[in-house]
Amino acid sequence: MVSLSKFFNPQSVAIIGATPKEGKVGRAILENFIAKFKGRIYPVNPNYDEILGLKCYRKIRDIPEPPDLAVIAIPAPSVPEALIELGEKGNRAVVIISGGFRETGTKEGAELEDRIVKIAREYGMRIIGPNCIGIFDNWSGVDTFFTTKMRKPPKGHVAFISQSGAFATALMDWMAYHGIGVSRAISYGNKVDVDDVDLLEFLGDDDKTRVILMYIEGLKPSRGRLFIEVAKKVSMKKPIVVYKAGKTGRGSRAAASHTAALAGDYSVYKAAFKQAGIIEVDSFDEMMDVVRVFLDQPLMKGDRVYIVTDAGGVGVMLTDALTSVGFEVPLTPPDLREKLRSMLPPHCIVDNPIDLTGDTDDERYVRVLEVLSKRSDVDAIVVVALPQVPGIKGVFVDYIAKIKEESGKPVLALTIGSEYSIETSKKLQERGVTVFESPERLARALKALRTYSLYISRHLK
Amino acid sequence: MVSLSKFFNPQSVAIIGATPKEGKVGRAILENFIAKFKGRIYPVNPNYDEILGLKCYRKIRDIPEPPDLAVIAIPAPSVPEALIELGEKGNRAVVIISGGFRETGTKEGAELEDRIVKIAREYGMRIIGPNCIGIFDNWSGVDTFFTTKMRKPPKGHVAFISQSGAFATALMDWMAYHGIGVSRAISYGNKVDVDDVDLLEFLGDDDKTRVILMYIEGLKPSRGRLFIEVAKKVSMKKPIVVYKAGKTGRGSRAAASHTAALAGDYSVYKAAFKQAGIIEVDSFDEMMDVVRVFLDQPLMKGDRVYIVTDAGGVGVMLTDALTSVGFEVPLTPPDLREKLRSMLPPHCIVDNPIDLTGDTDDERYVRVLEVLSKRSDVDAIVVVALPQVPGIKGVFVDYIAKIKEESGKPVLALTIGSEYSIETSKKLQERGVTVFESPERLARALKALRTYSLYISRHLK
Repeated sequence: MVSLSKFFNPQSVAIIGATPKEGKVGRAILENFIAKFKGRIYPVNPNYDEILGLKCYRKIRDIPEPPDLAVIAIPAPSVPEALIELGEKGNRAVVIISGGFRETGTKEGAELEDRIVKIAREYGMRIIGPNCIGIFDNWSGVDTFFTTKMRKPPKGHVAFISQSGAFATALMDWMAYHGIGVSRAISYGNKVDVDDVDLLEFLGDDDKTRVILMYIEGLKPSRGRLFIEVAKKVSMKKPIVVYKAGKTGRGSRAAASHTAALAGDYSVYKAAFKQAGIIEVDSFDEMMDVVRVFLDQPLMKGDRVYIVTDAGGVGVMLTDALTSVGFEVPLTPPDLREKLRSMLPPHCIVDNPIDLTGDTDDERYVRVLEVLSKRSDVDAIVVVALPQVPGIKGVFVDYIAKIKEESGKPVLALTIGSEYSIETSKKLQERGVTVFESPERLARALKALRTYSLYISRHLK
Repeated sequence: MVSLSKFFNPQSVAIIGATPKEGKVGRAILENFIAKFKGRIYPVNPNYDEILGLKCYRKIRDIPEPPDLAVIAIPAPSVPEALIELGEKGNRAVVIISGGFRETGTKEGAELEDRIVKIAREYGMRIIGPNCIGIFDNWSGVDTFFTTKMRKPPKGHVAFISQSGAFATALMDWMAYHGIGVSRAISYGNKVDVDDVDLLEFLGDDDKTRVILMYIEGLKPSRGRLFIEVAKKVSMKKPIVVYKAGKTGRGSRAAASHTAALAGDYSVYKAAFKQAGIIEVDSFDEMMDVVRVFLDQPLMKGDRVYIVTDAGGVGVMLTDALTSVGFEVPLTPPDLREKLRSMLPPHCIVDNPIDLTGDTDDERYVRVLEVLSKRSDVDAIVVVALPQVPGIKGVFVDYIAKIKEESGKPVLALTIGSEYSIETSKKLQERGVTVFESPERLARALKALRTYSLYISRHLK
C-alpha cells in the first residue's frame, strides 16, 4: 500500500484539467498550488502550451517524471483514461475532484465509479474522491479546495476530516475568521478508497496535527472495527473530536439522501466513540469550543474547579453550569479561606466562587490567583473578568497568562461585552488562556478536556 | 402607590451627590443625564454652585420643584437624611445607588437599610436599590448605569431586569456590540422595595418593550404567587424570557452568598415559569438567541419545519437538531415533491431537507422558497445559505426577506464562515430574518418560539 504521505507531502503534482479560464475549478486549483506549493507543478491540458506562466503538458505521458500526486478535474467520462495514463506513468496518489459518479444516482455514474476503482486497484493507486473538494494542507501547500469565496485559515495544528465538502469549506472560512490554525483538512466525497480510517491513522502520526476534528455521517460497516482500533491508538497521542450527524431517525434518513451514508444506529457509534477515547460533541459550538480547549490547555487531573470573579451573578451561573456537567465547585477549605480573608477586603466573598466584587482592581486577581495556582487541591481555575469594572486596568491579563503557563493546570477565562472585553479576550487567547462568553459553553468544553484526561490516565496505567 | 412611570418617564430629576470630580459615580450619572435626558436636571451637592454647566443646589430643599425622580449617590450614612428631605420636598421615586447597607453583612448596614425602608414608607416613596446600578432607559434618557467602560446599546425593544448589576452592565455592553436594541434595563440591588413583580407589571404595559428578559437568582417568597399572576397577564401581551441562576445545590448556595437570595427549590420555579407562560432559557447563548427570535419572528402555528440548503451536511445537522427538540422535519409530500422535481435539476434532493447542492445559484432558492412559503403544511422555513458556494451572488437575501415578510411564517437562516457570510447574515438580520451559525442553537431558539406560540394559542381559547 502507498503511504498517504504522497497526498500530503508530494514533491511534484500534476493537475489534470488545469486551465486559464476564469471561474473554472481547474484554474482555482492551479492558482492554489502556484500560490503556496513548493514542489514541481505540472499542468495538463491538451489545449495549452502554457498556463499562468507554467509549461503545460498536452498529455500525461509528456510529464517529465512520475508526479507524486495527481489532481483530476475533468469531466467524469474522461477520468478512467486519465487514471490509466497516470498509472502507466507511475503515479500512485490521485485526488479526483470531478463529480458525475455514483452520487448522480444513475446507472452510468455507478458504472463509471466501479471502473475507476478497478483501474486504481490494478495499478495500486490510492484515490481520494471522486466528487470531492479534496485536500487543504497548510504546511505542504497542497490545496484542491477550489472555492474562491473561502478565506484560508492560518497555519496551525487542527486537522479536519469531513464527510461534507460544503461544511468543510464553510468551517475553514469560519476558522480563518476566528484565527484558528489548521494543519490539514480533507473532504473525501464518494470515498471509493481513502476513508476516515486511513486519514485518522495518517493524522495520528502527523506531527503538525495536535487535534483531529471529524464530521462523520456514517462509516462503511466493514471498517467499523478497524476505525475503533485505529482511534484507540491515535487517542493516546492526541484528542479526536467527532461530530456525528444523522443521530436521529430523520437525520439518519437525511444523511442517506446526502452521502448515501449508512448513518447506522447512533447508540452503537456512541458506545464505540467512548470505547476508543473519542470525544463526541453535540453541537457546532461545542465542536469549536472543545478544539480550542484541547489546543491550549494541559490535561486536567481532577474535578475540582475554582472560580474567581468580579461579578457575583456570573459566578452563580458558572457554578450551576460546572456542577451540572459533573464538576465539583468545592467550598473553600478553612486554611484557604483564612488565607484569602487575610488578603481581601471584608466585603469580598472567599467562598468558591471567590467574588472580588465590582470594586476590584487587577491586584486582587493577582493575589488570589497566585495562591490558587499553587494548591494541589485546585484542578482548574476559571477567571471571570468582566472588564466593565472601573478598577480593572488590564494588568491581570499578563498574570492570568503567567499562572496558566506556570501552574500546569487548565486556566480558562470568561468575559462578556464589547470592544474592551474583546480586546481582553484576544490578549488572553494569544497567551493560551481559552476565553468564553458563555458559562455553559465553558463548562461543557472543560468537561470534554476532563473526559479525555481521564481516558488517558486510565489507559496509561 | 406611586406608579413606576415616575422612574422611567420623569419630567425632572435630582441627582444627590452629583460632582464634577472625574472617576466618581456622581459625575458619571450626571453626565449620562446631560447627554440624553430631555427633562430638568437638578444636581445637588453642598460644595458647588455649578457642575458641568448646570446650576447646582446645595440642599435638596433649594430645588425649585419636587423632582419626579431622585438619584442618590452619597455615602450610606447620609442617605436617611437625604431621603427625609426628598420626602418633605414631595419626591416619591428614588433610585439609591449607594452601597453600605445589608449587603455588607454588618449590623450597622442592616440597621441603616431598615431605616431607609421605614422613611420611604412614611412618605409613600418608592425605592429602587440601594446598592444598585439602577435604571438604563433608552427612550427617556434616565440612565444611572455609572460604568464608563460600558458601551450603551441602541434604542430598541428588549427590556432587561437583572438581579446582578455587573451582569446587567456586561450584557448591555454585549448587546451594544451586537446591535440589539434595548428599551429599558433595571438592576435593583438590595431590592428593599421595587422588585421583579413591580417591574414586570410596568414593562408589561410599556409600549416600547416587546420582549422582557430577566436574570433571577431568587424571588422573595412572599411575592411568588403575585409574580406568577402578573407574569400570566404579561405573557399574553409579550414574551417573558427568564434565566434562572442558582439551579443546582451549589449554585443556589453561591447565590445566597451573592445576593442573599433564596434561590429556592428550582423545580418549584420551573413549574411556576411554565404555568405562567414564561420561556426559561438554560444558557447565556440561548438567552440571546431566544430574544432575537422573539423580536423578529411571528408566532409559529405548528411543528412542521422545512429546510432548504446548499450544503447537504448542514441539512443533516439541522434535521438532527430540530427533531431532537421535538419538531417534525416532514418527508416531502407527493404533490410538493413533484412540483420541486419539475423545477430543480435532477441531482438536487427534493426530500426535506431540500438540498439545492453546491452548484446552486440564487434562482434555485427563490423558486423553492416561493413554493414553500405558500403552503399551509409548512409551519416554518430554515434556509441554509453557505455563501462560499460559487453560484450564489447574494440576490437570494432580498428574496428570503420578502418571503419572511409576506408568508407570515417564521423564516430563519443559517450561515457559517467569514466576511461574506457575515455580510449575508447582517443583511438578513436587518430585514428581520434571524440568522444563526449553529444548527443546534437555531433549533432551540425556534423551539422557544413554538413553546410560546402554543401557550398563547391555548390561552386565547
